[in-house]
Amino acid sequence: MDLSILAPIGSCVALLFALYLARKVLKEDEGNDQMKKISASVRAGANAYLKRQYTGVVVFFVILFVVLVGLGLGGFLTMFAPFAFVTGGFFSGLSGFIGMKIATAANARTAQAASKSLNSGLKVAFSSGAVMGFVVVGLGLLHISVWFFFLKYWYADPAHLTVAAGKTFEEAQIQAITSAMLTFGMGASAMALFARVGGGIFTKAADVGADLVGKVEIGIPEDDPRNPAVIADNVGDNVGDVAGMGADLYESYVGSIISTSALAVAAGFGLKGVTIPMAMAAIGILASIIGTFFIKTKEDATQKSLLSALRRGTWISGAIIAVAAYPLIYYGLGKENIGFFFAVLSGLLAGILIGITTEYYTSDTYKPTQKLAATSMTGPATIIIGGLSLGMLSTVLPVIIVGVSVLVSYRVSGGAGGIGDPSFNQGLYGVGLSAVGMLSTLGITLATDAYGPVADNAGGIAEMCGLGEGVRKRTDALDSLGNTTAATGKGFAIGSAALTALALIASYVAEIQVIDPDFVFDLSIINPPVLIGLFVGGMLPFLFASLTMEAVGNAAQSIVVEVRRQFKEIKGLMEGKAEPDYASCVDICTKSAQKEMVLPAVLTVVSPLVVGLILGVNGICGMLGGATVSGFILAVMMANSGGAWDNAKKYIETGAHGGKGSDAHKAAVVGDTVGDPFKDTSGPSINILIKLLSMVAIVFASLILNYHLF
Amino acid sequence: MDLSILAPIGSCVALLFALYLARKVLKEDEGNDQMKKISASVRAGANAYLKRQYTGVVVFFVILFVVLVGLGLGGFLTMFAPFAFVTGGFFSGLSGFIGMKIATAANARTAQAASKSLNSGLKVAFSSGAVMGFVVVGLGLLHISVWFFFLKYWYADPAHLTVAAGKTFEEAQIQAITSAMLTFGMGASAMALFARVGGGIFTKAADVGADLVGKVEIGIPEDDPRNPAVIADNVGDNVGDVAGMGADLYESYVGSIISTSALAVAAGFGLKGVTIPMAMAAIGILASIIGTFFIKTKEDATQKSLLSALRRGTWISGAIIAVAAYPLIYYGLGKENIGFFFAVLSGLLAGILIGITTEYYTSDTYKPTQKLAATSMTGPATIIIGGLSLGMLSTVLPVIIVGVSVLVSYRVSGGAGGIGDPSFNQGLYGVGLSAVGMLSTLGITLATDAYGPVADNAGGIAEMCGLGEGVRKRTDALDSLGNTTAATGKGFAIGSAALTALALIASYVAEIQVIDPDFVFDLSIINPPVLIGLFVGGMLPFLFASLTMEAVGNAAQSIVVEVRRQFKEIKGLMEGKAEPDYASCVDICTKSAQKEMVLPAVLTVVSPLVVGLILGVNGICGMLGGATVSGFILAVMMANSGGAWDNAKKYIETGAHGGKGSDAHKAAVVGDTVGDPFKDTSGPSINILIKLLSMVAIVFASLILNYHLF
Repeated sequence: MDLSILAPIGSCVALLFALYLARKVLKEDEGNDQMKKISASVRAGANAYLKRQYTGVVVFFVILFVVLVGLGLGGFLTMFAPFAFVTGGFFSGLSGFIGMKIATAANARTAQAASKSLNSGLKVAFSSGAVMGFVVVGLGLLHISVWFFFLKYWYADPAHLTVAAGKTFEEAQIQAITSAMLTFGMGASAMALFARVGGGIFTKAADVGADLVGKVEIGIPEDDPRNPAVIADNVGDNVGDVAGMGADLYESYVGSIISTSALAVAAGFGLKGVTIPMAMAAIGILASIIGTFFIKTKEDATQKSLLSALRRGTWISGAIIAVAAYPLIYYGLGKENIGFFFAVLSGLLAGILIGITTEYYTSDTYKPTQKLAATSMTGPATIIIGGLSLGMLSTVLPVIIVGVSVLVSYRVSGGAGGIGDPSFNQGLYGVGLSAVGMLSTLGITLATDAYGPVADNAGGIAEMCGLGEGVRKRTDALDSLGNTTAATGKGFAIGSAALTALALIASYVAEIQVIDPDFVFDLSIINPPVLIGLFVGGMLPFLFASLTMEAVGNAAQSIVVEVRRQFKEIKGLMEGKAEPDYASCVDICTKSAQKEMVLPAVLTVVSPLVVGLILGVNGICGMLGGATVSGFILAVMMANSGGAWDNAKKYIETGAHGGKGSDAHKAAVVGDTVGDPFKDTSGPSINILIKLLSMVAIVFASLILNYHLF
Repeated sequence: MDLSILAPIGSCVALLFALYLARKVLKEDEGNDQMKKISASVRAGANAYLKRQYTGVVVFFVILFVVLVGLGLGGFLTMFAPFAFVTGGFFSGLSGFIGMKIATAANARTAQAASKSLNSGLKVAFSSGAVMGFVVVGLGLLHISVWFFFLKYWYADPAHLTVAAGKTFEEAQIQAITSAMLTFGMGASAMALFARVGGGIFTKAADVGADLVGKVEIGIPEDDPRNPAVIADNVGDNVGDVAGMGADLYESYVGSIISTSALAVAAGFGLKGVTIPMAMAAIGILASIIGTFFIKTKEDATQKSLLSALRRGTWISGAIIAVAAYPLIYYGLGKENIGFFFAVLSGLLAGILIGITTEYYTSDTYKPTQKLAATSMTGPATIIIGGLSLGMLSTVLPVIIVGVSVLVSYRVSGGAGGIGDPSFNQGLYGVGLSAVGMLSTLGITLATDAYGPVADNAGGIAEMCGLGEGVRKRTDALDSLGNTTAATGKGFAIGSAALTALALIASYVAEIQVIDPDFVFDLSIINPPVLIGLFVGGMLPFLFASLTMEAVGNAAQSIVVEVRRQFKEIKGLMEGKAEPDYASCVDICTKSAQKEMVLPAVLTVVSPLVVGLILGVNGICGMLGGATVSGFILAVMMANSGGAWDNAKKYIETGAHGGKGSDAHKAAVVGDTVGDPFKDTSGPSINILIKLLSMVAIVFASLILNYHLF
């Protein structure tokens, strides 16, 4: 059986399932008029933002399209590349867009359902998260399938293919296919970068701005409808945590599959090897769908039982994948290559373990965050030092987990020897498969993650519309759970980004070998271009984090000014007699996010080019390695510091160390505010940075091979 | 002429010059009885601390001595290694000890001299700093010379040397010499680690503890004699910023010279190549001495003219070195190798440029720190975000400077080709020479740096003894200048650490090739052990920073408790009628620093062993590379964030944004407190971490070659 057929089947099943869930969600009652109104405002704001974002992105894509066409005409790229680039961007954006659409449709419905029972609320919120999860994997795999079958058909014609000396026709065919497919990874990455950075700036600018004036200066509670930035804050959850996260993981998912496929030839597996990652993804989709049916809860559910309900789904999916991967590898690659099965397993396991360590360091049910909360007693300085220290410490286990996973998957796949040795390439293919294994549960992990912002919004709506104590309690339970799943999801996103980035670096090397089989690599870390590349690459995530944090600060500043202005100029606002101008805050966030995301994006695309033109291919490899290592570590640190500060504050709000309003609480609020851009803007954006750098390097590989200084 | 004779001459000149300066300083008047008393307390505290520290360190050294003897008996090391290790540690400690002695003797004298004129104050403070500078370079070069001549004599006897097949006698001789000499680098590094980490914890625990209770809770000014931690704070300046800095740079200095010497054989220069770095260092000493005579100022000096007085000295020294290096290389290595002269120049220049960027990002006369000060207007959260962002941004230029310097020095030295190629090794030797070039001005740069804490202490004494407005103004001018030179000095320490670490990595590779000429390296960054090593190494500085920040927090906490206790229990303390128990605070700091420095030290020594035993030689190289890259970046970030927060606070204290006591000022104090462990504990300790990791790897090279898992 040709296993490649599994991919379109899996993707269609995912999309149909998403459609089914979406219709189910939309059938739910949206509640009373006020709820509808607020929900509509959020929807309108999110639409406005995405429209604006896509308009800006189109300019960027048109410029790069022209550049790629130029490269194609110059013979540096296949003629499909520019189109693959555009479709990659389009589908990545579409995933985020659909996810955002359903999330903004589900928020009021979740609040309304929660007024019936906790289980109903969970069902609606989780279903809408699942729509996003399955749209991402479905569109991702569909996109891959369409291009794969088209390119396979196209390059089956000998007239369309030049076969290099010493290569078989099949080898040349696969290389042509995978080269073109890698280009759409770049499109997806670029789109994801805009979504993550732009969305991240939007959501945190609104959040910080709303809090600084509302909570701190004026003294009104969070989510108070009198605060002009409150709608912008809700919009931010959707454009940042939903649309941004969706585009990010779409890109990891697609990236891991195509980069692993691209490694198949060098590993000696031919077309069979190309289809295994796709088939693996298809199995993951089916397993994820089955897993969703195990997620339900009883009315008397505690936070713990809610969490275990969500976990049950993920773990059942993981178990199914583990079982199904065995026959897939056995029949797909042959009995003698069963080692690759263990590579898949190691990736699966690594994903789960990273999630657990993230939870350990950021949940207030464990010691680190509780200890952090205690440091608030001696003021803001000590909780900042404590949080940074916690974040740095929390990088140790994820590094070891990723390291062990890479080593295991390399070894069990038979890897040994140096570059060019078939066993070496087999090992790298194994590393790629472990990334695919990790991401195979994406349908359901993304569902549990995207569910969080929906529950958060539902809580906001419940608050603004005064739905009563019982409903609030239920949405709070859902929301609080969402914080945990969001932290776990972030850990998962970072871990998968690291493995995917490694697979992409290997693909880059493979791509260079395809373009110029005589190219002699010297990737020794003590080879100066590599070494300097390592330094420059290691610095890029720091620069990127600096720019994005600065951007949040600037944008938040403009929100502060606007909110202050409205409280001063709109009469009766404070008394609740007049309505604030929500739209102007949404508009300011939108404009700021658009403006501020340009520099980081340009930096990411330009860096590999500049480094490559100066230091050549070896230097680029160094840069990619340095960026992956330091980016992974910095991203873990920022996400966990941020998560721990957030939960330390919540822990104090439950009454510890003096509770709400105490000096300790004020100190914890400072920690939380510092943590906001850490965990929701800079940290997650770094995931995309490290992948996009590789993608750009791959696409411009031919150019750099021909033109470089050293 | 045998150029090696320059080394003992240079070292003796340095030591005699230091002696001359020390006598001159000690002849100065120490002021009135109260000044003498305070100065004596500080001296007693510093002595007590160092005594305790050295006792703890002796245990560590004895254990490692036994381990090294064991390795020697097992045939994994030369029999000189354990002794070299011990002498390395001893001289490193001695440098710090002497520096501390003179600094604690000079503080009251500086205050007294400043009551005469600004120029007198500057002379005393600078002279005492210069004692430390020239003791460090003098002892360093003396130590190297003694071992070099002894080992050369010893291995001249064919009975003491096994010459491997295909090697000349001279080659074998040099390899035996440099191998043994690398071991004392490890001793110096280990000692430096204790001095930096222990001193760093001491100084910041005292500082933070004194401020949290004194300034924040009780509301008495800084340096108020009623504060029980005020003497501990002054002691901290001496044990951290003087003794710690001295041991650190002793180690960089020695490390750069011996690692470059060790690269001489592979580069094909034989004994001549070994002596060049030593001769270079000797020239640097003479140039530095000349430079000191150009440092003087007029009574109406502004901060700017004071700074340019100090700079004049450094630049004149640099210029002399640049001129003298030409004939040295010309006659030492031959006309055809004059390229190495430019390598030296590039190092010299890089050191100066890194200092300038540090100043740009941390001095309040430039925009970044002024902008940071403005973020304090919206509270502590925004100034924290701003400072972190500034620190991250400030890593860009140093990375580029180091990168360009490495590339230039490699290229001008004829470097090309892969590992084992003579031109490659020539290039690495050039990189080593650039590190030597950078550090050749150490005598005078360290003088301008160590002068800072002396001026700071003098200011404290002037304050405590009420020496009057005029004197205070002069010591303040000196102190404020000290902050700038300290920041520049930190940049210099970090830059030289990075280049030295790179030279050490190259020496490690050379050492492996000596031990096992058949060993096949695969240092490709995509070779899994290397890659995993990169990840683990990249994580180590973060772990190290986390542990040291945590340590400062814990130690500061115990000071807070003690100071609170004294104010509660000692009657009349607040009214100035009773004396606080200064000694108990010094004692608590001492104990905490001792306890807390164990874990980071053990971590540093154990990590290369664990990584090596699991991942082998290639994995160790990856680890060293990863640690150097991420350590350099993190150290720059932490030093600059800390420096900028400090100066932003000072800037506000001059009246900006509401001045002292305003909300902006309170926010800035939070930033400064977070910055304290950043810039004075964790940041500088990372410098040593990255060098010690390499040293340990070199010493245990044979063992790891024989025993490793992968």
